[in-house]
Order: sequence, then structure tokens, then C-alpha cells
Amino acid sequence: MATTTTKTGQPLDRPTLDSLLRRRLFYTPAFEVYGGVAGLYDYGPPGCSLQANVIDTWRKHFVLEEDMLEVDCTMLTPHEVLKTSGHVDKFADWMCKDPKTGEIFRADHLVEEVLEGRLMGDKEARGQKVEVDEEKEAKKKRKTKDTKAVKLPDSLVQEYEETLAKIDNYGGDELGLLINKYEIRNPTTGGEVLPPVAFNLMFQTSIGPSSNLAGYLRPETAQGQFLTFQKLLEFNQQSMPFASACIGKSFRNEISPRAGLLRVREFLMAEIEHFVDPEGGKKHPRFHEVKDVKIGLLDRKVQLSGRTEVTYMTMGEAVATRTVDSETLGYFIVRIYLFLIRVGADPKKMRFRQHMANEMAHYAADCWDAELLTSYGWIECVGCADRSAYDLTVHSKKTGAPLCVRETRTEPLHIVEWQVDLDKKKFGPKFKKDGKAVEAAVEALSQDMREKLAIDLEKTGKIEVDVSDVGNGKVEIGSDLIKIEERTRVEHTREYTPNVIEPAFGIGRILYSVMEHVYWSREGSEERGVLSFPPPIAPTKVLLVPLSGHQDFKPLVQRLSNKLRQLGISNRIDDSSASIGKRYSRNDELGTPLGITVDFQSVKDGTFTLRDRDSTKQVRADEEKICAAIMSIVEGKKEWADVQQELPEFTQQEAD
Amino acid sequence: MATTTTKTGQPLDRPTLDSLLRRRLFYTPAFEVYGGVAGLYDYGPPGCSLQANVIDTWRKHFVLEEDMLEVDCTMLTPHEVLKTSGHVDKFADWMCKDPKTGEIFRADHLVEEVLEGRLMGDKEARGQKVEVDEEKEAKKKRKTKDTKAVKLPDSLVQEYEETLAKIDNYGGDELGLLINKYEIRNPTTGGEVLPPVAFNLMFQTSIGPSSNLAGYLRPETAQGQFLTFQKLLEFNQQSMPFASACIGKSFRNEISPRAGLLRVREFLMAEIEHFVDPEGGKKHPRFHEVKDVKIGLLDRKVQLSGRTEVTYMTMGEAVATRTVDSETLGYFIVRIYLFLIRVGADPKKMRFRQHMANEMAHYAADCWDAELLTSYGWIECVGCADRSAYDLTVHSKKTGAPLCVRETRTEPLHIVEWQVDLDKKKFGPKFKKDGKAVEAAVEALSQDMREKLAIDLEKTGKIEVDVSDVGNGKVEIGSDLIKIEERTRVEHTREYTPNVIEPAFGIGRILYSVMEHVYWSREGSEERGVLSFPPPIAPTKVLLVPLSGHQDFKPLVQRLSNKLRQLGISNRIDDSSASIGKRYSRNDELGTPLGITVDFQSVKDGTFTLRDRDSTKQVRADEEKICAAIMSIVEGKKEWADVQQELPEFTQQEAD
Repeated sequence: MATTTTKTGQPLDRPTLDSLLRRRLFYTPAFEVYGGVAGLYDYGPPGCSLQANVIDTWRKHFVLEEDMLEVDCTMLTPHEVLKTSGHVDKFADWMCKDPKTGEIFRADHLVEEVLEGRLMGDKEARGQKVEVDEEKEAKKKRKTKDTKAVKLPDSLVQEYEETLAKIDNYGGDELGLLINKYEIRNPTTGGEVLPPVAFNLMFQTSIGPSSNLAGYLRPETAQGQFLTFQKLLEFNQQSMPFASACIGKSFRNEISPRAGLLRVREFLMAEIEHFVDPEGGKKHPRFHEVKDVKIGLLDRKVQLSGRTEVTYMTMGEAVATRTVDSETLGYFIVRIYLFLIRVGADPKKMRFRQHMANEMAHYAADCWDAELLTSYGWIECVGCADRSAYDLTVHSKKTGAPLCVRETRTEPLHIVEWQVDLDKKKFGPKFKKDGKAVEAAVEALSQDMREKLAIDLEKTGKIEVDVSDVGNGKVEIGSDLIKIEERTRVEHTREYTPNVIEPAFGIGRILYSVMEHVYWSREGSEERGVLSFPPPIAPTKVLLVPLSGHQDFKPLVQRLSNKLRQLGISNRIDDSSASIGKRYSRNDELGTPLGITVDFQSVKDGTFTLRDRDSTKQVRADEEKICAAIMSIVEGKKEWADVQQELPEFTQQEAD
Repeated sequence: MATTTTKTGQPLDRPTLDSLLRRRLFYTPAFEVYGGVAGLYDYGPPGCSLQANVIDTWRKHFVLEEDMLEVDCTMLTPHEVLKTSGHVDKFADWMCKDPKTGEIFRADHLVEEVLEGRLMGDKEARGQKVEVDEEKEAKKKRKTKDTKAVKLPDSLVQEYEETLAKIDNYGGDELGLLINKYEIRNPTTGGEVLPPVAFNLMFQTSIGPSSNLAGYLRPETAQGQFLTFQKLLEFNQQSMPFASACIGKSFRNEISPRAGLLRVREFLMAEIEHFVDPEGGKKHPRFHEVKDVKIGLLDRKVQLSGRTEVTYMTMGEAVATRTVDSETLGYFIVRIYLFLIRVGADPKKMRFRQHMANEMAHYAADCWDAELLTSYGWIECVGCADRSAYDLTVHSKKTGAPLCVRETRTEPLHIVEWQVDLDKKKFGPKFKKDGKAVEAAVEALSQDMREKLAIDLEKTGKIEVDVSDVGNGKVEIGSDLIKIEERTRVEHTREYTPNVIEPAFGIGRILYSVMEHVYWSREGSEERGVLSFPPPIAPTKVLLVPLSGHQDFKPLVQRLSNKLRQLGISNRIDDSSASIGKRYSRNDELGTPLGITVDFQSVKDGTFTLRDRDSTKQVRADEEKICAAIMSIVEGKKEWADVQQELPEFTQQEAD
């Protein structure tokens, strides 16, 4: 994979960024004083605030803008629900155990690691440049055999590369075959591993004191929403289509978590279930609003041909050419795209990739992932799946609950059909114990067959029907027992199970990817990192710095702080003794977009300087104008360039 | 318990309120189509929005107002952490099993249920009025023996009543004794139950694929905050005091959940850990802001004397008289009080009750609960505990992590003390293998003992020291080996473990209690329920109703809706064919504080009527004035009375 670059075109130095994020407490490994637990992270104050702002933006962008019905469902979920949904049987990864050391590997990761190691060794042996990736480097250090500089035959190199490109598509048997074929071993010890077995990724627990009600921590928020469907439909006054939404934690008991915040065991999700009538091509009433937005798409066909180049097209075009299956799916893809940009993702590092057929979750009929490019590669941050009627159907079947829509037809439906009347009184005595079976066989006859039999009956006064398990499998019924006629039936109501389009957001992955996208460092110094969050999602909006510890500054700073707080603008005072430049640098790392300096002139004439994080340019004006400028920037109504045009520039004073 | 009344003085009819809350989808039993799971509830759209608004208010009232450091810690918690914190051993309830039926009872609930039943039977036998409580009624129906109309001896009635008053204070042994003494049996079958055993209330699971890392779902958010203490202190630039805060779900595997939303297995908490220097009496710099607020307190002494009357006093008085232990505890009690009022709790149904010594959690040194009066009795909604240095100390001891504060003393501390010097070179050869033990015994000598020995040494040239396990337990040391002198030591830094004041909010309990407090029904009709939420926390702020389905109304309604949305004001359009009165009634039940009617005059002159939920009074004005009025009410800056004075009244048109 090519090295990723920052927004200013510098090579992205992940260790430096990571150290910034930890030092500034965006996130921190959970339970670190106890040695930590893999895959569990806490957010510190800036991470927590960033998360709250992204969630707030999500609520406005989706729930409020589209009148979605937000629900808060429990995480604890009884076994039966997840058995029915298919998660108990299918929500699993493949793991291999080394019987000697007891180590457990995720099978696809093991294959990937070993083959990548050999390809690196091959490159080294061929004298080619080897990409240095921190993670792979770490692996390399702990390995012996696989990364040795050994030249491989050209054909094997090609096989390895093809295998790696398709690594997400293999099931347990296929992974087992690859492990045998390529003699893949425990990288550390060289010991053989056992064949892959399925490991269910749900955390199990038991509910109540008697231990006989098994439960899981939900792997997605979706099931709770499906089970509430009927009540939500009623709350929505029976009006379709509509969407529910849920924000909350979900859980995956990863076999071996890696890649920091990107693969964790407990994570915040925001999921939408949009319920839509499957008839009429899943049109969307607001599709016209999004049809001209151009999006980078990577569809299934392109991937099948082994390529990964993105095609840019308008969503109107994508739906017209059936690249994207329906208006509703297309509508949400664009809405997701706009949301990601709003929270700071770089559109040049974004693509929508369609899932391969065998890569999809067990419930999905189609799925497009919004992927963001990071130093870990392309990361799935939002999935937009068409779950068809799968979930509502299985739950309804299992429980008998009517998870469906009944609507009065505007025009009654007239159906011309062949109907069968049986003379039940004579039927029983004639067929005795076989009566039910014969009746069922007759009821099950297709329209075509009924038409044919009606003619037989007319002609011969009797018909012959196949009934397995009765006599010789054929039963004769005379016209004294049966009548078959073509009639018209009128249907006034229609009953259907809605299809579900599900945009599902992994908030933690979005946060991390955005942090990579907005990170850069000031020229000349890698140490001076900046996180250029869009002001509406920045953790703190304004830094207040008195020029020095002079007593006259204190009341001014405090008054400004209170005023901003009343306007709902989060701010921090830094009255430490560090230089103004140092204090601003600290807040560049926290991504604070604006800074106010209180100096001697402020005491004299009540004006303040306002500094822009990204350009470090400053303007000077009175309190009212400064606060108005801040407000408009924080609400996303103006940009710094606008403010700079409106207020006089200030050029003195910032020094390191 | 006396019947509770609504805010308008009507008797509160809980079944009617409950049915309203479920019908309007404030909450709903989770997994109901699967038969439900006791103690698990989902929030529907209005409940979810109410919860979000209460959380938002909480963040502003506490986190922003006091610059708290919010963190988001994981729910999954490894065994070792909760072992150290004491939860593995002590976070338990007592349960009794009926060995014949397999039924499991929570021991205190069983005793309570049976004794209450007998007291009811006694009242009936004495011809006294029996309070009918829905829950107890339900229990009564399924019981046989205990609720029979049997008169009890006066002395036994008194014993039962005293036992019930102290039911929260009994441990397992005591509950076992009560069960024997009063011959308490399975109420349904009359079968004997086994003695109480402890049942740990944490949900257990295992983390990772190898099943050897046991974990729990956290029972409180606090532990994550404690473990991050050192990083937060650093983030706060080593400045004390400070507070961390965390909002998130916690879990309790209740033995037998009851009382609806009040005792559930998964619940949202908002917890603050305020870290304070234990020296100097735990003063609080902002105490003067709250000292004149009068609060209803029920302290430990009053309860011990068997009474429950509340004493109203200012917090200044309460701290001065040591009713409340410190300024910091008092400060938070008032801040909690103000918060609860802000979200709609009725101050007349609120009290702060101090925990009895044996009722406190294992970590608490003192605790005051904010209790709200509901139809279920007084409900603990916020706990305000002084956890002293308990948690930081145990975690630090276990892990060796320095969970403490080191600060440079403004004035170095001069300590005059008796110091011991040993001549280590001679010491070893003389005592050989006992050297270490003798040395330790000497180091451990108290200051008093050192002073005494210094005189002995001066006088006799030798001293005698007790050293267990060495010789006859006494060791003689000569002045060639030891010197004891009074000297002055200068300490420049001070190291201490902060104490923790913890306000912990059960958000679900607050939501339910507030819903009882704001509920009433319009005169003459119990069917016309109203939820008078304060506008800032109401789920939806404005209902938009066109007078009829006339085409001219549509664009006006849509424009108003968009405008309000842009102002960040949630609104709903009800253009159903129901009468205006019916549509408003529906929204009274949802607690929507304001309504706008669009009528023919609106089309003509652009004016609209604005309706107040509580008084049903209306005013009429143009769009701009109406929107400004709404904004100021929703932000809590004005009340309806202000708006009614400013804008002309409108008196026509509302009809059922």
C-alpha cells in the first residue's frame, strides 16, 4: 500500500499522530494501570467532546432532517432473538489454535500475515524497496522464517497476491485449504496450527439469577429496532415509508483486536433502519435533491475483474445505469457522503465500495460501504445495506407477530382466478383419515393446473389429483365432491413486509479516520501538529489567552468566558506562564479553531484579537463583533475567509 | 403509604399514566414480541428525545458550568479491576430458593411482601380501610395464606412495622433469622425456602477467544474514571480540585426486577467524580453561591429515632451544624437539587436522605440520596456519596500505579522528629541472619518510643528493642551500633490521595419520577392527560396544525416547520383529519408545550395563533414574533405569562 499523505501533502507519520492523540487524551487504552485489555479504549475529554459533536451533527443531519423515529433499545438481548436473526449461527470468525503453545489466531489474519511476510522477504531478495509499515515492522521483528529474504517463483508471487486480494471472501474450509497448501504455521514458533473453527463473536452472559436465560450483548442495534417495528408504524400513524434510528454501543468479541481504534470490542454505532415498500422500485421522494451529486463508486463488477479504480458519476447516473440498485439506496449513499464531509472527512480519501456476493453479512441482499483512506488502508466506516425483508420475516415467522404493513388499496384489486369448492360434508365420509391430505393437495393446486382440471372435470365428470402418501399417490375425485370455476375476487387491503435499507455508522472508525484526514504539521516542524477539525465538531471552540499573568487581564478573560458559555460556545482559558505561541501550539494539537488574546490594548479600549488555527492570521475588533464572528464560524455559517474580510487584520505579537 | 397526588392535586392514577406512557411510546418492554425480558425496557421516540434533552441539560448544568473533564469509558471491565474495587465480593443481593419449585426470591423483597400481606390481612380483619396499590393488589391475587383476613396481636403488628421500616438494613444472616422467626414461606405454594445466599449482581462474560479473561459489565461508570485519574490530573495541568464525568449505561443483574422503569437491569447513568484534597475540611470555592438555598434534609439521626420528617434548612446552616459533612458535599447537594428542578421535578416531592451506616455501599464514607416521591414511594434518583480515598487507594495498592497528587508546598514543611541512624557495617556481622528483622523493628519504632530510647541510650549506652521471632523476643543494641537524635526534616513536596465526592444520577429513575411529577389531567376527564414538561426538556417543542386539509395551508405549514428546524426547534406537523381539539389532546399527552394553528387568516395576513399547553390560552401574531416567542420559551428565558403579556390574546376556535 502506498504511503498516505496529510491534507497538506506531507507523508503521514502515524506514530507522531498517535502519540499526539494519546498525549492530548483523545483516547487511551482502557484499564492501562492494570496492563490494559486488547480492543478496549476510553475517550478522554477532547475525544469525548468530539464524539458528542459528531453524534449531535448526525442527529441533525439524519434524525431531525428526515423526521426519523429515534429509539433507545437495550444492549442485553435474549438468546432466542439472536438465534432467529441468524447471529448465533453465523456471526462468527474463523480461528486456528496452535495446540502446543495454546495461541489462538484469527485464520484470515494468519494467512495474510504469513503471505505478506513472504512477499516482503521475496522483495528483499529481489533487491526491491520494501515499504516500511509500523504494524508490519512490528510483526517482522517477532518473526523468523516467513520474512527471511527468500526469492519466490514468479507464479507463486502472483498466487499470493491474488489470495491476499480476496482474503475477505474465504470461508473456514477455504482458509483451511490455504493453510495446508501454503504450509502456513505459527509465525513465532513454526508449529502447525489446527484447522480453522468458527468462533462466535458475541459476548455471552446470562440474565437473572437462575442462569437459564442465556443472553448476549448485541452485535448491532438493528434487532431492537426491527422488534419495535409494529409500534413505530402505529406511532407514525400507519404512514410509510419511515425510518427508525438508534445510537448506542454494540459489541464484538474480536479474536485478536488490532489497528487501534479501528477494530475494537466495544464501539458506538448509529444505525438507521429505513422501512420501504418493496413494490414500485424503492423510489425515494427526495431523490431529486441528491441526484446531481458526484460520488466515487467501486462496484462489484470492477472488483471481480481484479481492479480497484473508482468511477466518479452522479447518483442519478448510477441509479439509471443500475450500478446502484434503487433510488432509496442511492439517496442514502449521498446523504452518508454529505455527512462524512460535514464532520471533516476528505472527499478525495473517500469511496463507496460494493460488497462482493460472498462477503456480505448473512442478512444482506446488497451492501455499499463508505470507506475512508487511512494509513491502515481503506477502512469501512459506514455500511449501507439492503437487508430486504429478511429480519422482519424471520422474527414474524418465529413469534407470530404481524411485522408487516396493511394498507387500504386506493383502487380495489380485481383478481380473476380459478377457485375450488369442495363439498365438505361428502368429502369426509368418502376419504376418511386421508381427507385432510387430499384437501390440502387440492388447495395447493396451481392456477394452471386448476384450469386444466376444470376442463377434465367438465369432460369426464371426475379428476385425478396427486396426493403423496395416500393409496398409490393418485386420488380420483368426482364432480359430486368438487367444483372448479373461474371467478373474480376483490381485494381491498394489501399486506406486505417492508424492505429495509440500513445505513450503519461505526462512530469510532469515523472519528479515527477523520483525525487522520484533518491532521497536518506546520512547515519545518513535525512537532507542531495541527488537527483542523471543522469548527462545528471541534472539541473546544475557543481558547482564551491573557498576554501575561497581569491582574488587569483576569476579569476580562473571565467575562469573555462566561459570555461565550452563555452563547453555548465551549471555551478554555489558558493562563499558564508558557509563551503565547506555546499555548497556541498546545491548542492546535487539540484542534481548537479559534483563539482570543487579551492584551493591554484590550484593557484600554475593549478590543481583542481573534486568531485562526489554520492560517494563524489574526483580526482585531470589539467584544461584540468578535463574539458574532465566533458564533457564525462555530455554527458553520461563515468561514475564516469571510471574517478576515469583514474585520481589520492584526499583525503583531504572535511569537514562539 | 398515602396516595400520591398530581401537580393539580388529583389522586395520581398510575394505571392511566402508565397506559399513556406506553401508548405514546415513551417506553415499551424490550423484546415484547418474544414475550419480553423482566427489567429490560426500550425508549420510543418521545422517551428517547426526553432522555437526550435531560442529558443535554445535565451536560450544561454540570460539565460545562464547572469545566468537568468528561470521559467515555468502556462497559466491559476485566475481573481484576472489580475484584480490587470490592464489587466481586460485595456487590450482591440475598436470594432464597424454593427447592421444590425452583423459584428464586430476593430475600428482602420476600420478607417485605409476606409481612405487608399479613398486615393487610390484619387491617381487613380489624375492619380498617386497606390502601389499594396496583402492585400489591397483583401480589395479593396470587397469594393465599398471607393476605387472609387474620387479626394479629398488637405487639406483632408493631414488630412487623419496625422490621419493614428497617428492611434495607438487613444482611443475609439477619434476613435468614427473620424468615425463620416469622415462618416466611413461598407465598404461592407455602413451601419452605432455603436460607439466603449472596447473588452477585454483575453480568459476567468472558473477553477474547480463550475464555480465560473473565469480565463483567460495569455496575457503575466510576471505576473507569478512577483508573484514568492520573492522566486526567495531567490533562488538567496538575491543578486540583477537579471533577471527571461520565455518561453511559451500567448494569445490575437484578434477582427479580419490579416497579417498571425504577428497577431495571440496564440503565443510563451520569456520574461525577469530584477529586478533592482531604486536608482543609473539603472546602468548595463556589460554596457561597449555594449557601442560601433551602433544602429538605432527612439525616441519619432522625431516621435512627424511627422518624421520617424532613427538616428544611439552608445549606449554609446544614454545613455549619455539621448535618452535612463538608462544603463540597453541600455544594453538590444543592447543585443536584437545582438540576432536578430544572428538568421538571417538583421541589415539594423532593428530599435528601442520609444513608444509615449499614445501608451504605462498601466504598462510601457518607452518602445522601436525592429522593423523589412517586406512587411507588420515595425513590432514590441521585446518590451523592463521599467515597473518601477508598478506590484510588485500593487500585494504587494493587497495581503500584501512583493514583495520587504531588504538589510543591508553597512553604516548605519543617518537621522536628527523632531520627535513627544505624551503623550498617557493624550491624550485619553482629546480628547475621536476624539483621533485617532487627533493622525493621528499629525503623518501626514510634516517635514516643524513640524519644524514650534516646534517653536510655544516653544513660546506659545501650537499648533493648522488641523483635518477635528473634531470640527471646528482645534484642540489645549498643551505642556503637545506633544513634538516636532529634533533628529537623524539610519537606518540599506533599503527596496525597484525593478524596472523591460522587454525585451519581440514575437517568431512567429521574425520567420516570419527573413524568409522574408533571402529569395531570384536564378537569372533568381523566382521559385527557397532560405532561407538563418544562419546555427545554419536552420531547417536541411545537405542534403545527393546519385548520383543515385545505391546499393553501400546506406551504405555510411547511415553511414554518423548516424555519423552526433551522432555529434548532423540534416540531411535528399534524395534518390528520382529526379535529383541532383532538390533535392538541394527542400532543398534550406527548408533553408538547406549544402549538401553532394555521388558518384562513394566516393565508390572508401571515399571522398565526400560538397555544400554551398548560393553560390552553392562545395569542396571535406574525411569524417573526411567534418564532421569537417560541425561541425564548424553549430556551427557558421566558415563560408563557411573559408572552401572553406581550402579544394579543386570541380567543376563538379551539373546540373538541
